[in-house]
Amino acid sequence: MAERIDDLQCKGYRILQDSDGFCFGMDAVLLANYAAASVIKGNRVLDLGTGTGIIPLLLAAKTEASRIDALEIQSEVADMAQRSVILNHEEDRIFIHHADLREIRRMNFASSMNIVTSNPPYMNAGLKNTTDRKLISRHEVECTLRDVVTAAAFCLKSNGKFFMVHRPNRLTDIMTELRAAKLEPKRMRLVYPFRNAEANLLLVEAVKGAHSELRMEPPLIVYEAPNIYTDEIYDLYGMERPKH
Amino acid sequence: MAERIDDLQCKGYRILQDSDGFCFGMDAVLLANYAAASVIKGNRVLDLGTGTGIIPLLLAAKTEASRIDALEIQSEVADMAQRSVILNHEEDRIFIHHADLREIRRMNFASSMNIVTSNPPYMNAGLKNTTDRKLISRHEVECTLRDVVTAAAFCLKSNGKFFMVHRPNRLTDIMTELRAAKLEPKRMRLVYPFRNAEANLLLVEAVKGAHSELRMEPPLIVYEAPNIYTDEIYDLYGMERPKH
Repeated sequence: MAERIDDLQCKGYRILQDSDGFCFGMDAVLLANYAAASVIKGNRVLDLGTGTGIIPLLLAAKTEASRIDALEIQSEVADMAQRSVILNHEEDRIFIHHADLREIRRMNFASSMNIVTSNPPYMNAGLKNTTDRKLISRHEVECTLRDVVTAAAFCLKSNGKFFMVHRPNRLTDIMTELRAAKLEPKRMRLVYPFRNAEANLLLVEAVKGAHSELRMEPPLIVYEAPNIYTDEIYDLYGMERPKH
Repeated sequence: MAERIDDLQCKGYRILQDSDGFCFGMDAVLLANYAAASVIKGNRVLDLGTGTGIIPLLLAAKTEASRIDALEIQSEVADMAQRSVILNHEEDRIFIHHADLREIRRMNFASSMNIVTSNPPYMNAGLKNTTDRKLISRHEVECTLRDVVTAAAFCLKSNGKFFMVHRPNRLTDIMTELRAAKLEPKRMRLVYPFRNAEANLLLVEAVKGAHSELRMEPPLIVYEAPNIYTDEIYDLYGMERPKH
């Protein structure tokens, strides 16, 4: 395992990642930003399938959540996340659990969270019996969309918010599973790589027990032109715009 | 009733409309274009809740469908649609039925259509007992989303396509109703008035009996700036771009 330390470009926070494993991408950064605006002082937050802990670390940096719990099923990955927590001196606020979200009922999280986040495996691939870390992070080997949504619904308080990033090709699955779990989709944002390209990510906020009414927010367009981000993405990463 | 004749800006087709009633808007034009690309020579097409017949007229102008049936529950409106059919000499191809789509099983349309279209009432408003023509066109007084989807599923052949325009605030309802009726959403396009505005329309194609996999197409942005359409909209209406 080739471990490295990456700077999160946010208040000096850093993260341990495995160069050979799954490294966080723009999806995690977009999700953390999407959720952060709803986290208020004293909130309890849970991240399902946290991987190396990117979402808890960014939310710790960006919000005044009182406590952030996070579940990860892969022991080596959970261990790396825990070491990132220590690296950032957040061990009094972020709690990494090496645990299976399908057994969430064994943890004392019932109806206790204000916010639940997840950047789950995207692919419904029917792959089985693998120990490959990238595969487990990307495919529904260890948990399905339904498992994630069910766990989120179990842990949220009434009117608590669930934030998820996923792929638009699963949109129908996402909407039907959320509604079935009484997590009503209230806000969604589609991410288009270019203005004339198909969307490749979606961000959704669902509220436990809310009535049916969705806001489809403005398109999030990533590139203005090849290799030139849009202003919104430069702002998101706190990067300087290139000179014209 | 203040009746007028409007030019459809498409091969000389014209339509009768009631100045005091519901007049067709960009949603109908977008839907007709979205569906037209899938209509091939000899196809049978059905439009549910046709109003003044805008969708059948545009599809007659743009495609080689062999026959287009259309249902409208309001007798005066169905009558106006029928007169527009005659005005355009399409009475051998477009058949307007003054009928209630909730009683679709009384018509001999079972599994007979290649394409079904609908621009249904958008608002889930709980309004009742009205005879106001605009209200019936806009609110789910005479039929719900479920009624429309159920009728479409009944009339389509296996692998036949259902095209609908609707509002994004109903997206969860739309996805769950389509899937429940085994009309799987395959393609969707969101319409944003401006690049930085929330979406206010959506176009969806669902295929009877298809497997689950959705393409979220590029954003359809209507205005480049106030009073200046985007190139795509100028093309859609066959309008000349203003000089810069």
